[in-house]
Amino acid sequence: MTSYRAPARDIDFLLHEVMRVTESDIPGYADLDRTVTRAIVDEAGKLSAEVYEPLNVVGDREGCRLENGVVRTPTGFKAAFDKLREGGWTGIDCAEEYGGQGMPNLIGTAVGELWVSGNMALNMYHGLTHGAYSTIHAHGTEAQRNLYLPKLASCEWTGTMNLTEPHAGTDLGLLRTRAEPQADGSYRITGTKIFISAGDHDMADNIIHLVLARIPGAPEGVKGISLFIVPKVLVNEDGALGARNAVSVGALEDKMGIHGNATCVMNYDGATGYLLGEAHKGLKAMFTMMNEARLAVGVQGLGVASVAYQNAAGYARDRLQGRRITGPAEPDQAADPIIVHPDVRRMLMSQKSFVEGARAVTYWAASLIDRAARMDDKGAEALAGLLIPVVKGTLTDRGFASAVMAQQIWGGHGYIEENGMSQYARDARIAMIYEGANGIQALDLVGRKLPAQGGKAAMAFFALVKDFIRQNEADTELKAEFLDPLKSASKDLQAAATYFVQEGMKSPDNALAGATDFMHLFGHVVFGLMWAEMAKAARAGLAEGHGEPEFYRTKLATGRYYMARELPETRTLLARIETGATPVMALAAEAF
Amino acid sequence: MTSYRAPARDIDFLLHEVMRVTESDIPGYADLDRTVTRAIVDEAGKLSAEVYEPLNVVGDREGCRLENGVVRTPTGFKAAFDKLREGGWTGIDCAEEYGGQGMPNLIGTAVGELWVSGNMALNMYHGLTHGAYSTIHAHGTEAQRNLYLPKLASCEWTGTMNLTEPHAGTDLGLLRTRAEPQADGSYRITGTKIFISAGDHDMADNIIHLVLARIPGAPEGVKGISLFIVPKVLVNEDGALGARNAVSVGALEDKMGIHGNATCVMNYDGATGYLLGEAHKGLKAMFTMMNEARLAVGVQGLGVASVAYQNAAGYARDRLQGRRITGPAEPDQAADPIIVHPDVRRMLMSQKSFVEGARAVTYWAASLIDRAARMDDKGAEALAGLLIPVVKGTLTDRGFASAVMAQQIWGGHGYIEENGMSQYARDARIAMIYEGANGIQALDLVGRKLPAQGGKAAMAFFALVKDFIRQNEADTELKAEFLDPLKSASKDLQAAATYFVQEGMKSPDNALAGATDFMHLFGHVVFGLMWAEMAKAARAGLAEGHGEPEFYRTKLATGRYYMARELPETRTLLARIETGATPVMALAAEAF
Repeated sequence: MTSYRAPARDIDFLLHEVMRVTESDIPGYADLDRTVTRAIVDEAGKLSAEVYEPLNVVGDREGCRLENGVVRTPTGFKAAFDKLREGGWTGIDCAEEYGGQGMPNLIGTAVGELWVSGNMALNMYHGLTHGAYSTIHAHGTEAQRNLYLPKLASCEWTGTMNLTEPHAGTDLGLLRTRAEPQADGSYRITGTKIFISAGDHDMADNIIHLVLARIPGAPEGVKGISLFIVPKVLVNEDGALGARNAVSVGALEDKMGIHGNATCVMNYDGATGYLLGEAHKGLKAMFTMMNEARLAVGVQGLGVASVAYQNAAGYARDRLQGRRITGPAEPDQAADPIIVHPDVRRMLMSQKSFVEGARAVTYWAASLIDRAARMDDKGAEALAGLLIPVVKGTLTDRGFASAVMAQQIWGGHGYIEENGMSQYARDARIAMIYEGANGIQALDLVGRKLPAQGGKAAMAFFALVKDFIRQNEADTELKAEFLDPLKSASKDLQAAATYFVQEGMKSPDNALAGATDFMHLFGHVVFGLMWAEMAKAARAGLAEGHGEPEFYRTKLATGRYYMARELPETRTLLARIETGATPVMALAAEAF
Repeated sequence: MTSYRAPARDIDFLLHEVMRVTESDIPGYADLDRTVTRAIVDEAGKLSAEVYEPLNVVGDREGCRLENGVVRTPTGFKAAFDKLREGGWTGIDCAEEYGGQGMPNLIGTAVGELWVSGNMALNMYHGLTHGAYSTIHAHGTEAQRNLYLPKLASCEWTGTMNLTEPHAGTDLGLLRTRAEPQADGSYRITGTKIFISAGDHDMADNIIHLVLARIPGAPEGVKGISLFIVPKVLVNEDGALGARNAVSVGALEDKMGIHGNATCVMNYDGATGYLLGEAHKGLKAMFTMMNEARLAVGVQGLGVASVAYQNAAGYARDRLQGRRITGPAEPDQAADPIIVHPDVRRMLMSQKSFVEGARAVTYWAASLIDRAARMDDKGAEALAGLLIPVVKGTLTDRGFASAVMAQQIWGGHGYIEENGMSQYARDARIAMIYEGANGIQALDLVGRKLPAQGGKAAMAFFALVKDFIRQNEADTELKAEFLDPLKSASKDLQAAATYFVQEGMKSPDNALAGATDFMHLFGHVVFGLMWAEMAKAARAGLAEGHGEPEFYRTKLATGRYYMARELPETRTLLARIETGATPVMALAAEAF
């Protein structure tokens, strides 16, 4: 039996002691009073723990069923979703004019982690709706916004993203779904889409599909793709529901995990669709929301790792097996709890330092998205663009590894399905694949974001690290334990970037062969910066004597673990990168 | 749809060009003529590909069912098992006097990989039988050997190992199953065992359970455990089957993977059992076979990674998506096969270099087991003992990672169950847990094997590496590409061992906190040595002009990849180890 407790104090620490959000110049942040954010987190945490979490294993076991063309979600999902909708949680960071609460993305991100920890599969139904909301918000006409956004903000209707086709996944230029213009200005959409998360279900009156398709005569490849709104049930101009549209579920996929989410094959058979944004610019329109969507998937890596960690720590404290090597810890018991064993500690510290570092990373990225959106700050936008592939790629790769480690602590009891630890590993696995497989994140980082504007964003990042180190190195303990390792890791990252600039000129393969290593190297430096910032805040908390010395000491010890034992991976990553393309590309395709 | 092709040429290369088995002084090796081993591998490979592999997904989907107290195996499993039995494959390395073929463990290991690749879950039924065979062979009375071994060698009967109880997994000292002596010399066994692989099924007339239990009045802890033979159906002295014994299946576990293997809760309700070996020395008796059993689990990591790699490579050659960055590879197609992309290559090279290195490692370990058993060579036994935890731990950790990487190449098509790639990841996961979780392997390595006899085996290993380097460094290319990196990695390993000796004196936690890192560091050096040996043989093959230059060039390129891009991880591992216990052990148990 798994359980969950929202990490309220950790969130509080990040928002108010590390980021000091109320002092921020980002519009809306001044309102994020400590009591306000704590109340939000407590309430959401309670809902997630009491309503979402108990259904997590139910969703895994029952899965979704396709009955007479309709997808049935697992027992209890609709009632739980209703509770979230009733509380207005789904629109927390949607605009007030459309019924949302107008809070920053930062808060949406913080709360989003809690839903993921409770029930990742269920969370996806509103997560994807949020993506559809944002896309229509950014690209819809006023009429479209008025018609769809209030229903999407409240999740009275849900949304989907329809990109993939059987032969076109990463390479969307290959897609074949057709959109034929009609006399009334609408389009007839025909084609098959696959892997559509939340593609159909029984929890909402309508589903608003955003569908990529090609208008006849459009340019070839990605420059000829348009984006369409295709409601499951047609919507009259007054918002009332009309006739059923010609869209249907072809099949449900049987998957490794996220069984509670319906992954559908969607058939569009001359369905009525409405152009969203400009013709032939659909890919760009959908990708406007990429930062937000990819951050949300990174948060999945974090959220699953967090709850898996909690359940691993609980088990390690309870399970009696073997004796502490330095002498019995609980001589009155038949054995000591396994948390006394150094190798179990290693796994717990690795998870804990990942989870807390990852949370800091996502908050930073969310605040950059807020700064970009709310202040039209191009520098923040570029920096967010640089960080997002790192966040998505590293948080999901390492989130999965962390969930696997949590499962390992449970031993054989983690491999059987009864205890729920296998599900965390199986669920977390998908986040490495969807919303751009992690190899694509690495390619985006190295091929696009790093060289953009002459490397401006990367230089801004390095300057930021350097400034933080310089401004804080008078604190000699902080310097020795946090700033020096950060400086060293940052040098490795700069060396890797320099290598790419120099050797990438000779052949782009020299850079792309090291793209994934670079993404993880970058991730380590970002984590290192976050841990240095958290350590600074923890030291301040200790000095100010807030009465919680154990919290701050734990934070510092966790950070020291990261700096001492995780960060040195940058050396190996740099060494790999500097071997260039030759070892990777040496073989002919037939030789594999 | 997955498929499998036995790596016959790679096996041939290892046996005859790297190890040169026919020139070995190990009894039985001289008979391993090239045509003989090739015929064995071809025939077993054919059976595995044509009979075992097609049932792999069937076993995953159907799983086992418990019907009226009897376990039903998936469709086709019995017929496939029959083919193996008919061919005498299950007794390939069993003694001729018991109906086996008397071949070395090396050949059993080589063939074992092929069964695992075809169908890991089905392979476990005979794999565990082999373990029971070996244990009775080593510790049984003559009467017991004569009664059970012929049936176990032929797999007319199968075997199991019953160690774990609900509250006693790693810590077997806690076990409670009782064995009460009876007047006739037998024992009445009462207790519950869990996680019993192949605990029951419908594919054999009898199942011989080897059960750890405690005789009343026995010393506490592991020194009071005895081992018993408990047949499912009692066996008369003449070998005929008698009455059903009081052993039954309490439940079947629902697991993450290996669905085709029945993982049972076994209830012993006063079942008749026969002491195997000496009273109170059951743990030692069962662990005599540990090297062989742990090697077999390491081979599971290899075998699953191998077939997953093949299917990833096939998909990468077929799936058209995107264009090669240096210009279209197949301009007539809508897109290039994804094998042109450097990040896909990286994943394939990582898998390929792991699989081929791992195969060499297992052959070396098997040959040491043969040398120890067939020549009573204590040095070989000690070296095997040192290597086995490394083999089990690294081959299963990295075998799982390799299977996950293979799944990643398939993208979303790897996450759905339809294509079989998810199953490889799910199946491979268990090998990190059973037969001693990998943290226990690391503990065995650092706490027991490394310091044994004053570090004699470790010194022998280092001397072996050093000698190989010295004897071959005249070849300047081999030196630059293989020997120098090996030397550097070996130095890292020695530095880590030295650290353990020095700092472990102050507190054993200083060594145990780095145990898993040390295991992987050791693994890298072993892989490095294997790749250096393979490179030497490949260079010889090229020089001798065998007419297969592409095979040798591919082997060298694969090895170069390993040395350049995988081996440098030793730096990070050493850096971690040298941070000692403090970062790992800093927190109180309540702080997690």
